[in-house]
Amino acid sequence: MSTITPSQLLDSLKWRYATKVFDASRHISKDTWSALEQSLVLTPSSFGLQPWKFLVITDKALREKLVPFAWNQRQIADASHLVVMTVRNGYAEADVDANMQRIAEIRGGTSDALLGFKGMIMKTVNGLSQKDLAQWAKCQSYIALGQFMTSAALLGIDTCPMEGFETDKFDEILGLTARGLTTAVLCPAGYRSEDDRYATLPKVRFADADVIEHR
Amino acid sequence: MSTITPSQLLDSLKWRYATKVFDASRHISKDTWSALEQSLVLTPSSFGLQPWKFLVITDKALREKLVPFAWNQRQIADASHLVVMTVRNGYAEADVDANMQRIAEIRGGTSDALLGFKGMIMKTVNGLSQKDLAQWAKCQSYIALGQFMTSAALLGIDTCPMEGFETDKFDEILGLTARGLTTAVLCPAGYRSEDDRYATLPKVRFADADVIEHR
Repeated sequence: MSTITPSQLLDSLKWRYATKVFDASRHISKDTWSALEQSLVLTPSSFGLQPWKFLVITDKALREKLVPFAWNQRQIADASHLVVMTVRNGYAEADVDANMQRIAEIRGGTSDALLGFKGMIMKTVNGLSQKDLAQWAKCQSYIALGQFMTSAALLGIDTCPMEGFETDKFDEILGLTARGLTTAVLCPAGYRSEDDRYATLPKVRFADADVIEHR
Repeated sequence: MSTITPSQLLDSLKWRYATKVFDASRHISKDTWSALEQSLVLTPSSFGLQPWKFLVITDKALREKLVPFAWNQRQIADASHLVVMTVRNGYAEADVDANMQRIAEIRGGTSDALLGFKGMIMKTVNGLSQKDLAQWAKCQSYIALGQFMTSAALLGIDTCPMEGFETDKFDEILGLTARGLTTAVLCPAGYRSEDDRYATLPKVRFADADVIEHR
């Protein structure tokens, strides 16, 4: 089942760029935003564990409070929607259990029947230090980032992936720490401003031969 | 510029699943594969630094050699194409310089004119330990993983993200270590087999309210 042609895909991926100036007067429609939220929910993750929570912030005052802790980048406040991708701190057995229960709810059967699958997951989880587990969870959220930006481009929505922020301040302002969450990466979404000179700059990528190797 | 509708996007994302059994007799066409390679090349990354190299392996003998070091998962050998996403070990100033030179090549001007941008990047790079830099690079490759899987789904191509492999063995067999690269994550791509019972299982995701929070 192919939804688009190869050239349609490439047109959208080339159209995408890290938007520096958003048009603060334009808002993403409800239908389009709802699909983008689902692109987050449907993101694949390691063992399907989904060690994340996505904050969708439209409150302008809250976003203005965050701007100074994101290198004063205005995209935080000016985009139509701000997604703060957060991941679980101290991922543990209880989180795996919640996932097993959800599998049982959706596919039927009992969590007990999933003991083998759980055992395999716990072997991996127990083999990682707390720091490695945090990094593992963080990497998962970058799959969501990729799926979200690609989905957005195909829907004609601009995005800007952002790693430049003070994690501690974001966690504090958003009340994440007490809930066992931490900010992993940010992605404002909306519409590029006509004033954004970056929109028309040629895209810079290494030559294909430097990035792709055939074996 | 919207290429697809929200419901087309969701149909494709719901159609996608982590393919357990690929049809080894089916191959991705040249046009489609070429677009998927470009989806890798065009992946956004931190500061546009692209700290990666993507190995596209079609050689079946080489892939059979890798299977035992990926928990004997047959997708490695049976998919049409295997992408091994690798990232730079010990990312350093020379890598940033290569990127600055590429910007100058494509956008004109000299690398000297980019000194301010380079300074900002080096401040970030120098603020990270070698281990943190390795994790930073690894996370970038997960953006590529997300963009690749989403792109594939829209083109009707099946994928399976894989973290279950022995990094040391992959690096050794593929001769990566000496080149300053290490395996980050794997993604076989091709067509699901009619025998894959996982294809028809209901997708398991946490409830929207558990994953998305509006502020």
